[in-house]
Amino acid sequence: MSQARGGRLPAGVAEAMEALNTSVHIDQALWREDIQGSIAHARGLVRAGILSQAEGEQLVDGLGHIAQEIEQGRLAWDPKNEDVHMNIEARLITALDGLGRKLHTGRSRNDQVATDLRLWARRKSQEARGAIAELAEVLVDVAERELDTLMPSYTHLQRAQPSRLSHHLMAWQELLRRDAARLADAERRLNECPLGAGAVAGTGFLLDRHATAADLGFDGPMRNSLDATASRDFLMELSSGLAILGVHLSRIGEEIVLWSTQEFGFMALSDGFSTSSSMMPQKKNPDVAELVRGKSAVLVGCATTLLVLEKSLAFGYGRDLQEDKRPIFDAFDAALTSLRALTGAIGTARFDRDRLEGALGGGHVCATDLADYLVLQGLPFRDAHHVVGDLVRQAEQAGVQLGGLSTEALAAAHPSLSAPEVRDALDPRRAVERRLVFGGPARERVAEAIAEARQHWASRAQRAPGPV
Amino acid sequence: MSQARGGRLPAGVAEAMEALNTSVHIDQALWREDIQGSIAHARGLVRAGILSQAEGEQLVDGLGHIAQEIEQGRLAWDPKNEDVHMNIEARLITALDGLGRKLHTGRSRNDQVATDLRLWARRKSQEARGAIAELAEVLVDVAERELDTLMPSYTHLQRAQPSRLSHHLMAWQELLRRDAARLADAERRLNECPLGAGAVAGTGFLLDRHATAADLGFDGPMRNSLDATASRDFLMELSSGLAILGVHLSRIGEEIVLWSTQEFGFMALSDGFSTSSSMMPQKKNPDVAELVRGKSAVLVGCATTLLVLEKSLAFGYGRDLQEDKRPIFDAFDAALTSLRALTGAIGTARFDRDRLEGALGGGHVCATDLADYLVLQGLPFRDAHHVVGDLVRQAEQAGVQLGGLSTEALAAAHPSLSAPEVRDALDPRRAVERRLVFGGPARERVAEAIAEARQHWASRAQRAPGPV
Amino acid sequence: MSQARGGRLPAGVAEAMEALNTSVHIDQALWREDIQGSIAHARGLVRAGILSQAEGEQLVDGLGHIAQEIEQGRLAWDPKNEDVHMNIEARLITALDGLGRKLHTGRSRNDQVATDLRLWARRKSQEARGAIAELAEVLVDVAERELDTLMPSYTHLQRAQPSRLSHHLMAWQELLRRDAARLADAERRLNECPLGAGAVAGTGFLLDRHATAADLGFDGPMRNSLDATASRDFLMELSSGLAILGVHLSRIGEEIVLWSTQEFGFMALSDGFSTSSSMMPQKKNPDVAELVRGKSAVLVGCATTLLVLEKSLAFGYGRDLQEDKRPIFDAFDAALTSLRALTGAIGTARFDRDRLEGALGGGHVCATDLADYLVLQGLPFRDAHHVVGDLVRQAEQAGVQLGGLSTEALAAAHPSLSAPEVRDALDPRRAVERRLVFGGPARERVAEAIAEARQHWASRAQRAPGPV
Amino acid sequence: MSQARGGRLPAGVAEAMEALNTSVHIDQALWREDIQGSIAHARGLVRAGILSQAEGEQLVDGLGHIAQEIEQGRLAWDPKNEDVHMNIEARLITALDGLGRKLHTGRSRNDQVATDLRLWARRKSQEARGAIAELAEVLVDVAERELDTLMPSYTHLQRAQPSRLSHHLMAWQELLRRDAARLADAERRLNECPLGAGAVAGTGFLLDRHATAADLGFDGPMRNSLDATASRDFLMELSSGLAILGVHLSRIGEEIVLWSTQEFGFMALSDGFSTSSSMMPQKKNPDVAELVRGKSAVLVGCATTLLVLEKSLAFGYGRDLQEDKRPIFDAFDAALTSLRALTGAIGTARFDRDRLEGALGGGHVCATDLADYLVLQGLPFRDAHHVVGDLVRQAEQAGVQLGGLSTEALAAAHPSLSAPEVRDALDPRRAVERRLVFGGPARERVAEAIAEARQHWASRAQRAPGPV
Repeated sequence: MSQARGGRLPAGVAEAMEALNTSVHIDQALWREDIQGSIAHARGLVRAGILSQAEGEQLVDGLGHIAQEIEQGRLAWDPKNEDVHMNIEARLITALDGLGRKLHTGRSRNDQVATDLRLWARRKSQEARGAIAELAEVLVDVAERELDTLMPSYTHLQRAQPSRLSHHLMAWQELLRRDAARLADAERRLNECPLGAGAVAGTGFLLDRHATAADLGFDGPMRNSLDATASRDFLMELSSGLAILGVHLSRIGEEIVLWSTQEFGFMALSDGFSTSSSMMPQKKNPDVAELVRGKSAVLVGCATTLLVLEKSLAFGYGRDLQEDKRPIFDAFDAALTSLRALTGAIGTARFDRDRLEGALGGGHVCATDLADYLVLQGLPFRDAHHVVGDLVRQAEQAGVQLGGLSTEALAAAHPSLSAPEVRDALDPRRAVERRLVFGGPARERVAEAIAEARQHWASRAQRAPGPV
Repeated sequence: MSQARGGRLPAGVAEAMEALNTSVHIDQALWREDIQGSIAHARGLVRAGILSQAEGEQLVDGLGHIAQEIEQGRLAWDPKNEDVHMNIEARLITALDGLGRKLHTGRSRNDQVATDLRLWARRKSQEARGAIAELAEVLVDVAERELDTLMPSYTHLQRAQPSRLSHHLMAWQELLRRDAARLADAERRLNECPLGAGAVAGTGFLLDRHATAADLGFDGPMRNSLDATASRDFLMELSSGLAILGVHLSRIGEEIVLWSTQEFGFMALSDGFSTSSSMMPQKKNPDVAELVRGKSAVLVGCATTLLVLEKSLAFGYGRDLQEDKRPIFDAFDAALTSLRALTGAIGTARFDRDRLEGALGGGHVCATDLADYLVLQGLPFRDAHHVVGDLVRQAEQAGVQLGGLSTEALAAAHPSLSAPEVRDALDPRRAVERRLVFGGPARERVAEAIAEARQHWASRAQRAPGPV
Repeated sequence: MSQARGGRLPAGVAEAMEALNTSVHIDQALWREDIQGSIAHARGLVRAGILSQAEGEQLVDGLGHIAQEIEQGRLAWDPKNEDVHMNIEARLITALDGLGRKLHTGRSRNDQVATDLRLWARRKSQEARGAIAELAEVLVDVAERELDTLMPSYTHLQRAQPSRLSHHLMAWQELLRRDAARLADAERRLNECPLGAGAVAGTGFLLDRHATAADLGFDGPMRNSLDATASRDFLMELSSGLAILGVHLSRIGEEIVLWSTQEFGFMALSDGFSTSSSMMPQKKNPDVAELVRGKSAVLVGCATTLLVLEKSLAFGYGRDLQEDKRPIFDAFDAALTSLRALTGAIGTARFDRDRLEGALGGGHVCATDLADYLVLQGLPFRDAHHVVGDLVRQAEQAGVQLGGLSTEALAAAHPSLSAPEVRDALDPRRAVERRLVFGGPARERVAEAIAEARQHWASRAQRAPGPV
Repeated sequence: MSQARGGRLPAGVAEAMEALNTSVHIDQALWREDIQGSIAHARGLVRAGILSQAEGEQLVDGLGHIAQEIEQGRLAWDPKNEDVHMNIEARLITALDGLGRKLHTGRSRNDQVATDLRLWARRKSQEARGAIAELAEVLVDVAERELDTLMPSYTHLQRAQPSRLSHHLMAWQELLRRDAARLADAERRLNECPLGAGAVAGTGFLLDRHATAADLGFDGPMRNSLDATASRDFLMELSSGLAILGVHLSRIGEEIVLWSTQEFGFMALSDGFSTSSSMMPQKKNPDVAELVRGKSAVLVGCATTLLVLEKSLAFGYGRDLQEDKRPIFDAFDAALTSLRALTGAIGTARFDRDRLEGALGGGHVCATDLADYLVLQGLPFRDAHHVVGDLVRQAEQAGVQLGGLSTEALAAAHPSLSAPEVRDALDPRRAVERRLVFGGPARERVAEAIAEARQHWASRAQRAPGPV
């Protein structure tokens, strides 16, 4: 019988209820934080004069031993004890008897689990930021290595304007930057301590909640005991942030799949990040990128689950909240696995410079440049756009690109187009270097962006400690 | 090294990739269906003359032995073998050597996994329909037992009109009826066999796909090999159906929570389906109903995951689809656990007839009946509604309900209201029995509904076999 | 002041409330069904002897006139009258005075709106099935026209096995078949009439609900008045079915985007279904396919909204349900717009046969066929798969495909590979025609599939009436 | 013909395409920002020497006139011009001819729309924070007014521990605090300017992006042109933040519905925020709270739509992104309407102090206090919890609460319980004031929390400017 049922419900739960009620197979992932929180609570009871110094030390020791047992796989988790919290308390009572039964003074599972979950979420979010930083740094490395690899930029998956591979990879890196910042904001916001809030209405024992909060590395105690035990917006926020990250990774994954096709041929994953087929012996598949796309669905699903879970919940704590753990555990797992696999896959991939540059084609991607040239000759942009559009249509009919049109054809469209500089405008290799505007793909600008990003992630990595 | 990598990618996968790539810890749930499908495929190879009769029998035997090993927990699942399919094939090769290496002839993991998943989903959906039927039958039982328990019906959670508990419970049962029908429709639609579709474009071996489909209890083979291997709408449909079921169970859960409050006091769960508190010794909590509400969030999340997963997937099979298993496994698990717990909780709950009838109050819930009475005296309904609305306002100011107004007050509002039958209209116990319209809460109507429902579920239960 | 407030709440609603409360700008889309339902209710009142024959006729006439007014845009919708139902009733009262005030006898907005919504949903779902059938028939047409256009099939977006364009298009068509069937099942399930259920507990007037149900084309009345007014699973089911359809259309859209790239070059949309760029004069973009992908997100969002909306709603009717209209209206709009645009886009697109066949390449897509050839020579498939995998690796190193390997190289891998028929196995044009298994891409099989599909959709179209 | 089709696609779009393609009926909401952005771009062209000072002034004037026209409803939006951007440009060209055709120099709709959307989102997010602050301040006001109103706190909707209404309302306020902070973080993160990024790869004109960014109140230009035009995580982040807010409001709404029931009877909404029934004249319904719950479903749906929309989108801009507007418009609308209605409803509601205090009951809610009393006498908490649990069971059997047990019965359970102070422990009015821990419900603590919150929102309100 669980300690929680106590004298009120002396008989056990029905079998069909137990399948729903027991969560230790899932929430045991919180064991580290549960012990960390219990140690802080024990110290708090000493501080409040409820336990003696010696009692406090014994409890801390006992909890430390249980941590070792768990670490070494020696603790037998008992589903009858419902969850990780009751299992650890039961073990403590076995070890310390009466003293063990004192630990829960002035505490409820409600503030206990809220504290554990915040500690866990903080640690995992830091870990995720570390993994984001590693992927970003690989992107910056590859961007630097490929600084001279040109390629077209695309819109609507159609070749659009001349660009360079580095510029493209640095865009991926920009997304990651905001993804990491979102997690950091969420960490900051969740970093308040529920302990001392009791079940819902605090406790009559005069615990020093500020001291306990500081002990656990929180910025302070939560300001309202009801909010402290009944709110889980930190999980909704983190999972939303991870879902956005997942969507971003799915976009990168999509491009890796595309670029690995025989049709694009822009990149080749290393064998260690490729798979073959059980039936077709010739296949070398970019499963890594597809799995990352797939994980983004998991991440969106987790965020949805957590939002739906809290919808219309009356205050305070309701047991619905037991279901908050699996989705957040799954979400961090999906995010971390995806980040690490992508980091390896991109870091070991080979880019095919000839295919990338070849895709610049024969002048069509410079159509905007040609229009811009006409603007410099005094044509309003809309008129220039129309002139060039006509030329594109002519070229298509002739089966060539803009660069393949004769000077006569150009001149016929507009007199200024007979000038020799027009050929410059139509050379993608030159055109890309003219895109010197801040944020543009000219070599100089991208080199600056790489340097800035290196600096950003260097300091970022310091601020985001890895897994404990 | 996995058989799938073959000669094409002789080296193994990178570690960061393996964490993403390996799925055997999840998809081993499909082992029964994988063996069932392989046996059917082996028979198909014999039928097509690709294997001899003896070879076919040996394979079938070998697969049967592996099934026993798994059943008894003796098969060591190896993550290096990626998934359940490769693990079983590897075990078969160990046992039968060359013959084992023949099983995959004319087959791909793509048609294999699609077949396994359809077999599994069919079985689980039948199981879920069985569990729905059990809950529904408990509802009908309780409805019959409580046929004479009156209560108000509510809209906007405000007491609305006189009704009876049975009528309310029978409404819950109606929802379940459609939930089961949705699953049955999905089963019918998914009951087509992918086997023989190969990786994507069929196979050159002339397998008799109709025979194999029949062998596995399918209505026939899927008509297009690309569709057969790349589509998972049967999972989207099932998980959507389960999400709707989950939402319905959450509505029932919500009412159990409400009715268990001290304020409503309409019902009391049995101790076996109640929990207490780790801090507050007086608590007896309806966690079962809250957990069911919580599981509805899981079900909505699973449906979302599966929809997002397939969004914008090019044909044919992409590895994104590996992520289709966890959500559908979780969804059936959440649905079955919820159904069974609710069945137990409702079947053992006690309803407080005094509190339920007491909530009928002193006439306010008969306001519609009073207006209807005026209609029978010739007043247009809108005018009658207005007259009664005025009376309600008067009563509220006097601190009484409609039944507490004096005959003078009633007569002042409208002359017909001085008649003695007006007191009948204002008696909720009589008013409920006047609601004789089909589908209404009069005793007679509800008794008929109960009889009809018994018959429905009896035949239903026969059509929905339980778990194999 | 609205009729609904009556004598109970004589003052109007607060301004901040009105913004939330008023829905006529949205639900006026239901006007046709509201009038249809009111006419049936008026006839029901006559049938029950509550109204005289003459009164009934006057009401039906009055409602008919209002229908004309609305049709011609002459009815001024008044937000003070909250919704479409109250606006129409108010107009009727203006026209018929006392008689108009009689229409709402034995009816509540709760059963009224539930009826209107079911009528509307039934009509729209039929319309959607009509639009699905039109898209499917265009696919069948193009499949027939392109029966001799070969192309590789893909898995993981890598060229996999030889196939034909028709086979691919027929796979799209298979998905649509199930999408239409899901809607048809939902229609069948929703086709029950709530009218007569009143607000929640029926009515004391003895309305013949079966007759009214038949009058409105329903299969019968709903069996429980509480369920009738408080349930909206028909909207959850329809929107889930539309979300699955949307996901399917997004997959088709994805392939159109891919196939329209310069890199694939498999197809060209007609100008009428293409767009250009405001900046880049050379662009011709497949926006139609991208917008269809985008609409799939809207459809998933609508399904999610409806699931979340009903989560944990206590019975009976709660005002939350007002929010069920926008998502279902939006969902049908997104689905219909997408279906019609895709029908036009695919019907007018041009497929580039040379590019499609060119993608078959030089033998790699026949690797399975080569392994199958070795199987026919007696090699277990797994060994054959390994031999061919090695050959592929050799070919890659030599910069050729399997067909480019010398006979010596083939023979060195396995003696049987020196036979001249090996070249047959490696010819994709022949290989595709050997895939004669049911559901495979051989010409004969696909021609049969086309004939079968024509028949299916012909009968389907008859069963799915178009928009009224 | 739209300017965007230019010379490339001289014919118009097909009808079925137009229904999908045209967005001006939706995106015209961006008109203010489009003009603001165009003015800044015109100034940028002058700064870059592309336009003369005089041309720039003419453009700015022209745009100002168009703003007036739109404000006064005089601009006829033309669906043929696709969207708000092209409509405004077309109007400018009509007004200024050649000069109007110069405005789009060095700009694409891609950077234009990204800029407009960020400006709009920034403004709306500030507006939403203003509305959150107003609701929070009403909560603080009511909390102050009701400082002496006691009530039980609940867990699992069961009476748990003694508390006060103010403490409960202040918990709601805490949630809003984090909701506002999340929006503020999102605003900060989105406050970078895309203008100058062109379609995807910047522009060859040397625009001073830093100056333009400053002109529009952005913190600076976005660092990568591809990211600037293809990313919409700011919308995913805002809509996720609004969904979390919506879930929080749904929790408040749920409690208002509960508290307004006859069974709880804790509060009564004012008539201006109540509705009645079309059928039942006695009804006074808390629709406002139900509609707020319903809007939370809309908000979750919008967040889902935006996540799904971007899933697996290749870079750069794809037309899928057109569908980003409706969900974000709808989300802000749902949030603002809900916030304002709740502010009015709560500010004008009446709380029933007798019912609230009455719910404290006869001692059961002090069970924890009784256990704590035993702890102070030296019993380990777990033993004390068990003793009190037994007593609760005894009391239940006797049909009383803990306070109704005789001193003998108490003493029999544990000798210390015969002390007179035990009656103190069992008096909820005293027990609540002993909960003096930080964050607890004692009067002193709540008064401090109110003072702190006042200060917080005062400064907050200053930082969050209302709508422009």
